[in-house]
Amino acid sequence: MSFFRPEIEAMAGYTPGEQPQTADFIKLNTNENPYPCSPAAVRAALETARSGLRKYPHPMAEPFRRRAAEVLGVPADWILCGNGSDDILTIATRTFVGQGQWLRLPYPSYVLYKSLAEIQGARSEEVRFQPDWSLGDDFAAARPGLRLAFLPNPNSPSGTVLPPGRILELAERLPCPLLVDEAYVDFADVNCVDLVARCDKILVSRTLSKSYALAGLRFGFVVAQPRVIEQLAKVKDSYNCDALSIAAATAAIADQAWRAENRAKILATRSRLVAGLRKLGFNVVDSHANFVWSTHPAQPARPLYERLKQTRILVRYMNYAGWGDGLRISVGTDAEIDACLARLAEIV
Amino acid sequence: MSFFRPEIEAMAGYTPGEQPQTADFIKLNTNENPYPCSPAAVRAALETARSGLRKYPHPMAEPFRRRAAEVLGVPADWILCGNGSDDILTIATRTFVGQGQWLRLPYPSYVLYKSLAEIQGARSEEVRFQPDWSLGDDFAAARPGLRLAFLPNPNSPSGTVLPPGRILELAERLPCPLLVDEAYVDFADVNCVDLVARCDKILVSRTLSKSYALAGLRFGFVVAQPRVIEQLAKVKDSYNCDALSIAAATAAIADQAWRAENRAKILATRSRLVAGLRKLGFNVVDSHANFVWSTHPAQPARPLYERLKQTRILVRYMNYAGWGDGLRISVGTDAEIDACLARLAEIV
Repeated sequence: MSFFRPEIEAMAGYTPGEQPQTADFIKLNTNENPYPCSPAAVRAALETARSGLRKYPHPMAEPFRRRAAEVLGVPADWILCGNGSDDILTIATRTFVGQGQWLRLPYPSYVLYKSLAEIQGARSEEVRFQPDWSLGDDFAAARPGLRLAFLPNPNSPSGTVLPPGRILELAERLPCPLLVDEAYVDFADVNCVDLVARCDKILVSRTLSKSYALAGLRFGFVVAQPRVIEQLAKVKDSYNCDALSIAAATAAIADQAWRAENRAKILATRSRLVAGLRKLGFNVVDSHANFVWSTHPAQPARPLYERLKQTRILVRYMNYAGWGDGLRISVGTDAEIDACLARLAEIV
Repeated sequence: MSFFRPEIEAMAGYTPGEQPQTADFIKLNTNENPYPCSPAAVRAALETARSGLRKYPHPMAEPFRRRAAEVLGVPADWILCGNGSDDILTIATRTFVGQGQWLRLPYPSYVLYKSLAEIQGARSEEVRFQPDWSLGDDFAAARPGLRLAFLPNPNSPSGTVLPPGRILELAERLPCPLLVDEAYVDFADVNCVDLVARCDKILVSRTLSKSYALAGLRFGFVVAQPRVIEQLAKVKDSYNCDALSIAAATAAIADQAWRAENRAKILATRSRLVAGLRKLGFNVVDSHANFVWSTHPAQPARPLYERLKQTRILVRYMNYAGWGDGLRISVGTDAEIDACLARLAEIV
C-alpha cells in the first residue's frame, strides 16, 4: 500500500524550464531579465546580510507592503507577499479550491496552474483562447463546484493581453474569484490593479522575477481586498519571505526609475526580435511581455529548438496537447537576440 | 455566499511569536540563536548578491544538497530543501494527508501542526505525552484514515527527547509515515537521521533557523528515502529556495566548526538558565533544546510574562487547552539570561 495521496502519485509534476548552471548559454528560455537588477536592491541585500540574519523576518513582509502600497496606490493591507508569485498562486488555490472542486484556466497558458489543481486534488477546466487570443464568455460560465479562475495577463506563451474592461466583465459574471496573474504586466501598457477596488472577486498577482530582474530572489505579491488578504494570510507559511528578499524587494520596487529604463530597453529589443523573426518567415504574435511566441510555416519547432541548443542558445519549446507547438523566446540583450536570429537564419 | 473554503474561514490561523521590529527587546520568545551566524554564510550571501539575482535558482537547491549530504552521511537525493522547515512540514502534509483524513501529533507540542491539518481540510488527533514526557503506544495505534504523524524531537515546549530506538519502534508500528521534526536536534545528544535508511516511513526535517542562527534566511530540509523525496518534490513550489539562501545555507552547513562552538556556548548558558530558574523556585524540565519550559508553583505564568514584557524582556507565554500553561524561555546570551533572571527574582 502506498502512503502517498493518490493525486500526488498519479501526477507527473510540473517541470520548470531548464536551468543550466553553467554561464556559457545564451539563455532565452525562462523569461529572465537579461540585465542586472537595481543596484539599490543589491545594496539592501548586502546591508541586511551584514546586519545579521539570526532573527525571524517580519511575518507579513511589512516594509515591502508599505513601499509597494505607495507605488501602486493601494492601502498596505491590500497586499500579501509571497516566496515568488508561485507561492501566491499556491496560497490562492488552497484558500479557494477544495478537493474535487474546479479551477478554471485559459488554454494555452501557464502550465503550472493545472499542477496546482492536481496537488490540491481539484479538477481543472481549460477554456480555449479564441484564434485572436481573446476569451469568450464561456470563460465566465457558471459550473457546479467552480471555485477559482486563473487568468495570466499578459498570457504566456502568447504574450497577448485582454483589456481590463473585458477582465472586469468576466470577473463580474464569474461565480468565483478571478486571479489575474500579472507576472509580465510591466512590459504591457495596461494593468488590472485598479479593478481590485471595483470588484472584490478580483485578485492581481505580481512578481519581481521578470521586470525587476530578481528571479533569483523569489518575491511576488498579490493585491486583493482586505477580507481576501485576511484569509490568504492564514494559508501562507508563517514566515514565507526571508529577510534578504524583503529588503531587496523593498528597495527594488522603490526604484521605479530603474524599472522604467529597463522596460524601455526590453521593449526596444522585443521589437528587434519580432522584426527579425518575421523577416525569417516566422509567424510572431504581437507581444506585451518580455518574450515572443513564434511558429514557422515550414520548419517544425522542436528541431529548431534542438539545433539552437546545440550551439548553446536556449529557447523554450512548448507543445500544448491538442493545440500545437512553437518556440517561446525571451527578450535578451540586443547581442543575445542578434546571435539567436543569426543562428536561426542559418537553420531555416 | 463566501468564496473561501469553509475550513479556511473557520480556522483561527497560526499566530507566530511576537516579532518586535525594534532592537530594544531582550528577545527570548522564538528560540532564535543569540549569536550572529557563521561568517562564511554571510560571505556567501554577499557574493551571490553581488554576482546577480536575475536568474532562477536551482529548483532543487542542488549545491546545498551536495554539501549537506557530506555532512550528514546520506546521498544527496535523500534530501529535499525548503523555504524554512515550515515549508517542509506543509509539503509533507500535502503529500500524505487528503481532505477529511487524519494527522497525528503529540500534545503539547508545536502548535503549527494542527493549523497545517486545518488548512488541508484534514483532522488532527492529539496524543498526550506521559507525565515524564515519554510517548505511549497509543501514538502508534492504527486508526482509519490516519495518513501522517508529526513528532518534534526535541519537543517544544518541553525541550525533551525520545530516544531514537523508541522512535523507530513507534514508526514501525504506525500505519503511516512519521515525520520527526528535528528543528532543535543540534542542541541534543541524539538524532534520527540514521533511522531513515532503516525505515522508509521515517522522514527527518531540519532547519537552519536555530542552531545555525539563520532564522531570517528561511532554510530547512528533510531527509527521506528517494522514493519519498520524489513525491515531495512534486508538491513543492518549483523554485522554493532563493539564490541567496541556497548560497548562505550551503556555506553555513559546511562550517561545522562554527556550529560546534555555538552549541557549546548555548549549552553552557542553558545550564545557567536552568540553575537560575530552579533557584527562584521554578519547575524546569531538563532541556535538550535552546529553550527551557518552566512553571512556578506559586506564580501564575501569564502575569510573569506580562511583567517581563513591561521591562522589554520577551519570553513566550504558552497556554495549552486542557493541559496547562507556562513560560518557554529561549537561551540567549549569558548577559540576556542574567537580566531575565534578575528581573524574575524581583517579581517572584
